[in-house]
Amino acid sequence: MITFEYPLNEKYRSYLRFEFLFLQIKESINVENKNDLVAFFKGFFDLLEMTERCDIRHDLVKDLRLLMEEMASWLTVDDVDHDAVNALLAEMDTFMNGVSEMPKQLRFFKQNRFLTSLKQRFSMPAGTCDFDLPQYHFWVNDTLEKRQKDVKYWMEHFYFLEKSISLFLKIKRSQGQMSEQTALNGFFQQQQIENCGFVIIEILDDDAVYPMMSGHKDRYSIRFMSAEIEHHLSDSIVFKQTCC
Amino acid sequence: MITFEYPLNEKYRSYLRFEFLFLQIKESINVENKNDLVAFFKGFFDLLEMTERCDIRHDLVKDLRLLMEEMASWLTVDDVDHDAVNALLAEMDTFMNGVSEMPKQLRFFKQNRFLTSLKQRFSMPAGTCDFDLPQYHFWVNDTLEKRQKDVKYWMEHFYFLEKSISLFLKIKRSQGQMSEQTALNGFFQQQQIENCGFVIIEILDDDAVYPMMSGHKDRYSIRFMSAEIEHHLSDSIVFKQTCC
Repeated sequence: MITFEYPLNEKYRSYLRFEFLFLQIKESINVENKNDLVAFFKGFFDLLEMTERCDIRHDLVKDLRLLMEEMASWLTVDDVDHDAVNALLAEMDTFMNGVSEMPKQLRFFKQNRFLTSLKQRFSMPAGTCDFDLPQYHFWVNDTLEKRQKDVKYWMEHFYFLEKSISLFLKIKRSQGQMSEQTALNGFFQQQQIENCGFVIIEILDDDAVYPMMSGHKDRYSIRFMSAEIEHHLSDSIVFKQTCC
Repeated sequence: MITFEYPLNEKYRSYLRFEFLFLQIKESINVENKNDLVAFFKGFFDLLEMTERCDIRHDLVKDLRLLMEEMASWLTVDDVDHDAVNALLAEMDTFMNGVSEMPKQLRFFKQNRFLTSLKQRFSMPAGTCDFDLPQYHFWVNDTLEKRQKDVKYWMEHFYFLEKSISLFLKIKRSQGQMSEQTALNGFFQQQQIENCGFVIIEILDDDAVYPMMSGHKDRYSIRFMSAEIEHHLSDSIVFKQTCC
């Protein structure tokens, strides 16, 4: 199975982008080798850019609050595990407060000359050569312990944002409505879906296709492309669709 | 020991940048995990940018030819290993011809829609999400064998350039003149150096300093900075300097 996700509005587009970056950073945060370092800084500087351009804190707090109200209503049902729901609600409350109090200004970053000069050069071709950034070259050759300490310190600023996005999307995915669908001649159109922020499409690996999706709000369409010939497929494809 | 290299002219600046990118690509070309992929494409797209902006083929062929003439003169000396020198000369000749025949146009790349769209999105924050690049997402989830085959095919275009740069700089480094120097109060100035393309500075790890270098052609200066306080150092530093 290969999974694709497609957001149906700008808000979820941003949520999924932030989640993508947090996952990339998580994968590389041990900075144990040179590839980890490139992946970490690519993710980290992208995250700084995204945070400057697009403030999701307000939307996220609102969405978490709505979700908490919905979940609190489950407590009126007898056969629900009250302890589990209460624990989850407490966790969400902590994360939500953390995001509310998160400063918009990335002061920790702007006051850090090491990071500002590295960010500036990172986007240039071969910009992080030792002669351009001797301080970075020194840092890369310093102890792993020192690098890991710095990297974790820089990411602390985003702790609650990461936790909130990750938990919110996890719950949304688990609440999604799954159905099996068929794309006749490789084309599929879905209309009148309500309260759907993003769609998950699951395809069998063996089909060797990928979906080109377009759409917004309450409708979307998929054109399945053959991975081998880079063209629109004429076969029919069976896939799983989950609206979240 | 920690080593820093500083180019004294634009030509060597480009040579060192290309070498830096080839090393980054070599380190990640197995594309075995997500961090490798980020590091590979960062290096690869930087290499495409550099190749477009800065044509080093002519300079490199000229430099290789000069070096070969110099090495051919060694053959008149009796106690030189003639077989070894001849083998090296033959290798350099092959690489040099390869670089001469290398097309300036990156046609293999411009005709590849997968790479052009990936390159365009790679530089945007979180630009390689699956909903932006479903074809890339499919490729990342394809077999390792397929990914490695593609990556190696794309890099074939640069085979002779990589080999030439790497061999040329290796010989230049081995021919360098090493001397021990002292930077009084953390400052050092070198004047009247001849035929020096770049300088190698070696410092003891324990000194916890990095050099801020400036200069060109026949002179340069170093200001040693303390890694801890990010300030100019007032102590004296002993270091090794190699002019290549």
